[in-house]
Amino acid sequence: MRDVAVLGVGQTKFGELWDRSFREIGIEAGLQALVDAKLSSQDLGGLFLGNMASGALIDQEQIAPLILDVAGLGHRHLPGVRVEGGGASGALALHAGYLAVASGLYDYVMVGGAEKLTDVPDATGAEITSSAADQEWEVVFGATLPALWALIARRHMHQYGTTREDLASVAVHAHAMGSKNPNAHYRNKLTLEQVVGAGPVAEPLGMLDCAPLSDGAAAVVLGPLEKARAHNDTPIRIAASQVACDTMAVQHRQEITRLDSTVIAARRAFEQARRAPSDVQVAEIHDAYTISALVSLEDLGFVEKGRAGAEFASGRFGPGGKTVVNTSGGLKAQGRPFGAVGVAQVVELVRQLRGDAKERQVAGATLGLAQDVGGTGATSVVHLLERTA
Amino acid sequence: MRDVAVLGVGQTKFGELWDRSFREIGIEAGLQALVDAKLSSQDLGGLFLGNMASGALIDQEQIAPLILDVAGLGHRHLPGVRVEGGGASGALALHAGYLAVASGLYDYVMVGGAEKLTDVPDATGAEITSSAADQEWEVVFGATLPALWALIARRHMHQYGTTREDLASVAVHAHAMGSKNPNAHYRNKLTLEQVVGAGPVAEPLGMLDCAPLSDGAAAVVLGPLEKARAHNDTPIRIAASQVACDTMAVQHRQEITRLDSTVIAARRAFEQARRAPSDVQVAEIHDAYTISALVSLEDLGFVEKGRAGAEFASGRFGPGGKTVVNTSGGLKAQGRPFGAVGVAQVVELVRQLRGDAKERQVAGATLGLAQDVGGTGATSVVHLLERTA
Repeated sequence: MRDVAVLGVGQTKFGELWDRSFREIGIEAGLQALVDAKLSSQDLGGLFLGNMASGALIDQEQIAPLILDVAGLGHRHLPGVRVEGGGASGALALHAGYLAVASGLYDYVMVGGAEKLTDVPDATGAEITSSAADQEWEVVFGATLPALWALIARRHMHQYGTTREDLASVAVHAHAMGSKNPNAHYRNKLTLEQVVGAGPVAEPLGMLDCAPLSDGAAAVVLGPLEKARAHNDTPIRIAASQVACDTMAVQHRQEITRLDSTVIAARRAFEQARRAPSDVQVAEIHDAYTISALVSLEDLGFVEKGRAGAEFASGRFGPGGKTVVNTSGGLKAQGRPFGAVGVAQVVELVRQLRGDAKERQVAGATLGLAQDVGGTGATSVVHLLERTA
Repeated sequence: MRDVAVLGVGQTKFGELWDRSFREIGIEAGLQALVDAKLSSQDLGGLFLGNMASGALIDQEQIAPLILDVAGLGHRHLPGVRVEGGGASGALALHAGYLAVASGLYDYVMVGGAEKLTDVPDATGAEITSSAADQEWEVVFGATLPALWALIARRHMHQYGTTREDLASVAVHAHAMGSKNPNAHYRNKLTLEQVVGAGPVAEPLGMLDCAPLSDGAAAVVLGPLEKARAHNDTPIRIAASQVACDTMAVQHRQEITRLDSTVIAARRAFEQARRAPSDVQVAEIHDAYTISALVSLEDLGFVEKGRAGAEFASGRFGPGGKTVVNTSGGLKAQGRPFGAVGVAQVVELVRQLRGDAKERQVAGATLGLAQDVGGTGATSVVHLLERTA
């Protein structure tokens, strides 16, 4: 299996991009990544595109050739493949692109993620966001994604003594980091009091515990590591790319406060890379809801089960901590364009590992982890990225 | 790159399966394939699932973990990846599964395709079938997929003298083959007069020039060729797996009677396999519309440009011909459950290459080709399969 490296990264601003179409944001990120990789479109061998719901949102399927077409590459006849796994679509596209280069059939590929969520009246209804939950066991009874995560939060509080303030500390951290990220949907800082005092969505989760729905796109160029140095002084190697699934419905889990898909994907990833959680200095994790960040930190192996709330609140995962999470602002502040999230996580990690993250830089970071989750954990994808020079 | 083989195949009946859910048909095909491969679910390393429109049709995204879950594998935490490219979704899932095994990261994987199209009032409207066409350049002006293919047909007739009867001969052949396939949606035979005399959909295409919308699922188990003989006396090697894209809108093509995505994907596939069109004895091609079969035969290299109509009508691609096409009945008679089509094509080829195709058997077939198309050719996927023993 060939070693695969990230050679270039690109990203649009995340937010309410009402003046720009799905097509436009899709290509902006890709062009940035290509320029960053010092490659031309002539070098590209294919596109792997993560997107969750363009069919339901804009009546448009088959969007990989669409994006190639609007990028001016329609007559180049490149392969284009769209990959979908709810909120994990972007990381799944990266996994597919990784396999393509690792196999040897492809050399340079673009992995993109794009989603346009704010042009429809209500993307939180059953048709869109909740289509990543189980229609027949959950959604049909009125459960939405925030409601399902709220069940997990309640149980976590009951079982481990996690407090409302512990949850809120995740959002406070996210906005503090987002304030330093020019691409972030939200750049305002929050206080613990603001988060706790915000109106309820599904108790204990309030308005400020839930990531926004955003428009946005992100892209990375992958290629064989051995060729990477010609393009980049600091090629970032993909040390592991692993996927694991779980039951669709929360009620069918053995233990609802544990994301087994994340436990297994992380275990496989650390095995593949021959590294351990303690080796990781920067991580982008799934904070679509404040509770999802806490269980993820536990299930990735960064902290003992049940301890993430207290540890997070104490600053263990903030600037200066052993592992700094979501320097991008995470889904909570950078934003949550479903299919773009997993790719944007890797864009941030590459910037960190190159030492290009400016105000957000974690000094001396050499190993980063990205965790992307679909629904309430039916899919988890874990990538490990490593600076090799 | 490791050689990859098909070890097992399975398929549900195609048709109006009103008494069976998406979930049920998805697992039936997979279990058949697993049994056929003489493997247990313990051997499986992952699922790659082709589906076009479950989000729009049944409000359900993230269906790869869903199918794993209902198959009883939710607690095995296998990787699950859904792949989409309009009508080419199934073959794209096969491409992704092929890359997974070829890379060495996966050993045995299930590739499935499933679609449930007949439980909604009208799947031919803009929301579903036409979501594989270009929303902003075609669909918004009222163009549907049959209307776009009708434009191609008119031009082909004008440019090359293709007749209405030539088109109709494709449907007659499909139903003749479908009559021998117990899984086919339609098993009735048709006469040329019936096809020509059927009511118009978009002239020159009539009701019987257009494949039906079907429910159905198909699955294949892939594994490394070197391990294949332990499971199968006649392992079928994937000699090539190639994807190419084109502009989304027909009007942006250099030549509307040519599917450049098919031309390029086929060229790459024959190069990869070091074979030529004349080596192929059995082919499953895209006859969603009678015209699409004719241009496909030309663009795959089986017949000179413009000659497919006359040659088809003369029986060149029927039983006893040098290359026999769509022994399954094709999309026209076997049926057209979008995401399942590309996988079902490979199921039929494997049966042919094993010599298991019963009444439909093409004697001595050793090399087969499958061509799966999305929309009007924005995506084409070409696979070559080879009997190695």
